[in-house]
Amino acid sequence: MRISVLGAGSWGTTVAALVSRRHEAVVWAREPALAQEISHRHHNPVYLPGFSLPERLRATGDAGLAAARAQVLIVGVPSHAFREVLESVRGRVEPWIPIVSLAKGLEHGSLLRMTEVIGQVLPGHPVAALTGPNLAKEILAGQAAATVVATPDQVVAKLLQEIFQHGLLRVYTNDDVIGCELGGALKNVIAIAAGMAQGLGVGDNTRAAVITRGLAELTQLGVAMGGRAATFAGLTGLGDLMATCVSPQSRNRHVGEQLGRGRELDDVLAGMVQVAEGVRAAPAAVELGDRYGLPMPICRTISQVLSGEITVHDAYRGLRHTPAGHEAGPW
Amino acid sequence: MRISVLGAGSWGTTVAALVSRRHEAVVWAREPALAQEISHRHHNPVYLPGFSLPERLRATGDAGLAAARAQVLIVGVPSHAFREVLESVRGRVEPWIPIVSLAKGLEHGSLLRMTEVIGQVLPGHPVAALTGPNLAKEILAGQAAATVVATPDQVVAKLLQEIFQHGLLRVYTNDDVIGCELGGALKNVIAIAAGMAQGLGVGDNTRAAVITRGLAELTQLGVAMGGRAATFAGLTGLGDLMATCVSPQSRNRHVGEQLGRGRELDDVLAGMVQVAEGVRAAPAAVELGDRYGLPMPICRTISQVLSGEITVHDAYRGLRHTPAGHEAGPW
Repeated sequence: MRISVLGAGSWGTTVAALVSRRHEAVVWAREPALAQEISHRHHNPVYLPGFSLPERLRATGDAGLAAARAQVLIVGVPSHAFREVLESVRGRVEPWIPIVSLAKGLEHGSLLRMTEVIGQVLPGHPVAALTGPNLAKEILAGQAAATVVATPDQVVAKLLQEIFQHGLLRVYTNDDVIGCELGGALKNVIAIAAGMAQGLGVGDNTRAAVITRGLAELTQLGVAMGGRAATFAGLTGLGDLMATCVSPQSRNRHVGEQLGRGRELDDVLAGMVQVAEGVRAAPAAVELGDRYGLPMPICRTISQVLSGEITVHDAYRGLRHTPAGHEAGPW
Repeated sequence: MRISVLGAGSWGTTVAALVSRRHEAVVWAREPALAQEISHRHHNPVYLPGFSLPERLRATGDAGLAAARAQVLIVGVPSHAFREVLESVRGRVEPWIPIVSLAKGLEHGSLLRMTEVIGQVLPGHPVAALTGPNLAKEILAGQAAATVVATPDQVVAKLLQEIFQHGLLRVYTNDDVIGCELGGALKNVIAIAAGMAQGLGVGDNTRAAVITRGLAELTQLGVAMGGRAATFAGLTGLGDLMATCVSPQSRNRHVGEQLGRGRELDDVLAGMVQVAEGVRAAPAAVELGDRYGLPMPICRTISQVLSGEITVHDAYRGLRHTPAGHEAGPW
């Protein structure tokens, strides 16, 4: 099968490398120089320094060319560039082929999920999201991991499962696309909250409670939006959140931790190369909560700290004073 | 209200100390010398060295006396001594009073939950379990935490919630007693699995996947036994598991980690003062799974490693080869 991946970031390149072992894979890099490096020197020095890529993997600087040859099109650009890149290949994509999103995030302003953006820009294609607890470098290093192909059509799901399944990467299917995409897009807000608890020096109990109640908050929102509660307890929700919370290199947890220690957001972000997605996701979660009449106390509090409305100490006091009710009530 | 706690371990003493602030609390210690220390010197040097206890808190070496005065009876002895202690106070307990279990575990042999044991030994009382992500020392140190009172009767739940709610301890109610008790009793098996993954040096992805799929396994079992899936995603399931997995002092994670590094179980356990509950819970989970026709791959594998049937490397290979299916299928 001819498979193209749009976007040569760490995850896009990793997925392209995985599928290249049994398929003809091409990855599009915005920078032609990076495409050259991947095609001819079999590495991606910008996003995956130190890793060798399969010799079979080819790269191109021409997105239209990559899209035109694809029998499966995978889109691995970040959420803020997603629509623009899709629009740039419109008219070049073969009919009927599945389009798979790798991006975790909601579109700024519209708050659409990435598969919804695909549906708007390239209607008439089966769409799927590949999401779960996936640190690109670990997967490229051949460590075992599990991921989820989320798509409503089980025939497409089965086919994509076979394409991505490789060696130690276990691929599950899930037809709850809403739940899978929301988990990935919003879990970083909870990672910031967990980091903040850590930075404040509160105990492991508190951190566990913040994570658990935070996930319950996202679950409530996801169910209101049409997702299933069980999905949020699975790999794309809890699993992804866990990977973020146990991994020492999580950017979102780092932001929370620094805020918890009393640093200013601008100051924390200034010291980082890549943006922490949770910073954008927090107000998005609150806005979605408002649409569905949900209080979202943890996301709201994190959002208020990030915008400078309240201090991190106010936040901690505030969260303590929201009344504890019946636990399993809302879902 | 007159409240008695049977058992002066770290958690029993902590709960007694909490409720003593607004109620007349007495804690029973099996060792009379320990009861003296608590009553007169206001500390528990055996289980909570370095912590001061409230002066109002009294202790006794006479379990019958403690039980006879109680308007709420709290049982904080470990699961292996639970039935014996309850039997020792039979006939001394006032009618109608609620009996609350603090123990996390299943009765050896019968695999009964602790509130079921209460129902057998002292029938006719409202029963409840207090469970959740609760590290005794953090709560005694006044750090914020959340816990759950699990009981089917919402009038009793509300009353107990008010009794336990204090300062930074947020108390939720949940009428799914089965789900709450099973989460607390079985999560340590998953903590061993997570520790084992860490000891083997696998990545954060894998660890996150093991924890998530492990919790899914417990959820499936819990639902088969009459619990609710949402409960396992809450404080008594996920929350408690998270506290175990983020806390550096978890015994169960430690056992798993040492096994992952290739040490023998006897050797690991010989170096520990307190037993790791997950070592007993693993075969219990498998036996329960068999009763309900569930495969329980993670619990079964951990159980086989603990019994020496397979090596930790076999375990890791085996878990990788169980087929990945439809994620949210079973629940």
